[in-house]
Amino acid sequence: MMQNIFDNEKFFNSYKELRETDNNYNILLEQPAMKKLLPDLSNKSVLDLGCGFGINCMDFVNLGASRVTGVDISMRMLDAAYKKNSHEKITYVNMPIENLNELHEKYDIIYSSLCFHYIKDFGKLTVDISNLLNDNGVLLFSQEHPIATASISENLGYLLNSNDSAYAYSFSDYQNETEHRTEHWFVDGVVKYHRTFSTIIDKLIDSGFVIQKVVEPVPDEYALKKREG
Amino acid sequence: MMQNIFDNEKFFNSYKELRETDNNYNILLEQPAMKKLLPDLSNKSVLDLGCGFGINCMDFVNLGASRVTGVDISMRMLDAAYKKNSHEKITYVNMPIENLNELHEKYDIIYSSLCFHYIKDFGKLTVDISNLLNDNGVLLFSQEHPIATASISENLGYLLNSNDSAYAYSFSDYQNETEHRTEHWFVDGVVKYHRTFSTIIDKLIDSGFVIQKVVEPVPDEYALKKREG
Repeated sequence: MMQNIFDNEKFFNSYKELRETDNNYNILLEQPAMKKLLPDLSNKSVLDLGCGFGINCMDFVNLGASRVTGVDISMRMLDAAYKKNSHEKITYVNMPIENLNELHEKYDIIYSSLCFHYIKDFGKLTVDISNLLNDNGVLLFSQEHPIATASISENLGYLLNSNDSAYAYSFSDYQNETEHRTEHWFVDGVVKYHRTFSTIIDKLIDSGFVIQKVVEPVPDEYALKKREG
Repeated sequence: MMQNIFDNEKFFNSYKELRETDNNYNILLEQPAMKKLLPDLSNKSVLDLGCGFGINCMDFVNLGASRVTGVDISMRMLDAAYKKNSHEKITYVNMPIENLNELHEKYDIIYSSLCFHYIKDFGKLTVDISNLLNDNGVLLFSQEHPIATASISENLGYLLNSNDSAYAYSFSDYQNETEHRTEHWFVDGVVKYHRTFSTIIDKLIDSGFVIQKVVEPVPDEYALKKREG
């Protein structure tokens, strides 16, 4: 079953509130890393998988993209996108990414921010994406780190010393890719899928991709201060 | 300074004893994974970096390699290799892998088993290797997993429950690549170098390699039984 947690009212409102802060992980860690990797978009067509509020879709237009398609499973997210980030060059499509093979137009760049860990069949996903890319097309995506998605128990993670600062990170079940993970994030039972580092790389290669760059971003001084503050 | 721990008498004897058992990690986990990835060696030239006792060099000859060069920093290891695994097609060279750029003949396949985590400058290493490969040459190597090399403290690692079985693994300092790691392995002060998963992949790509396959091997049932027994 495909999860549509972003249409859950409580989840949606909490998530929206988080994204409107200026010290969330997207702003401080993930988006700066992604921006550095973004290829030249001049006159390029871009597909944004899990486009959410459409913030990146609008950025892509401002960076010169000729047309942008934003796909999201959540109508609530797309309603916000229509309101805040409408543009004649942007088309929003309400569909699950699992049905990507229903799209037929091809793109120069396929982009996805922190979405793939919600998709069960990563092998199908990479094949579908490969089929939607023009020759020499580029896929740029971020997802949660495999160590962060590994544990089935929610009781693992950072180990804290007596003054509440983390001295280590703990995890289990790294090689277990058959069970999904559930976690409490705003609401109970948010489902994620865990893949090892090598599975992620290999499924991409098997689908015809050539790996150009892998980044595990580190927060900069500004980000660290923002989180402390 | 280049480490030559394998010429330390106590280390050498303990290591030799370990490798002569039938339930070490090399036999149960690393070597089966490496064997599966080995390309066809018929009439190929092979360079083995950190060849140790020369076991793999002899295997490569038996698999049809036209010539094999085994490089090792430890003369004790190569003495054992000369005694046990001499062959007219095998040349053993006693030199640190850090000086690889002193070699000039090129190879079809460069192989290395559990050695690269002892080398400080991984970027130089991958460039040196790239320069020694013929067109369409293949590098096949194993190294300790980045999560296993991460922690600076030796007190992290598996977390055990009351009946002494591991329920999680703990680590720290994953993003710290500037300090080397020291650990007690037979003797005090064995030095290793930690690189993140992305650094390893990216240095290879920067040196002209195309990533074909990444494996994080899982022990099979036989291996698990052997370790229990």
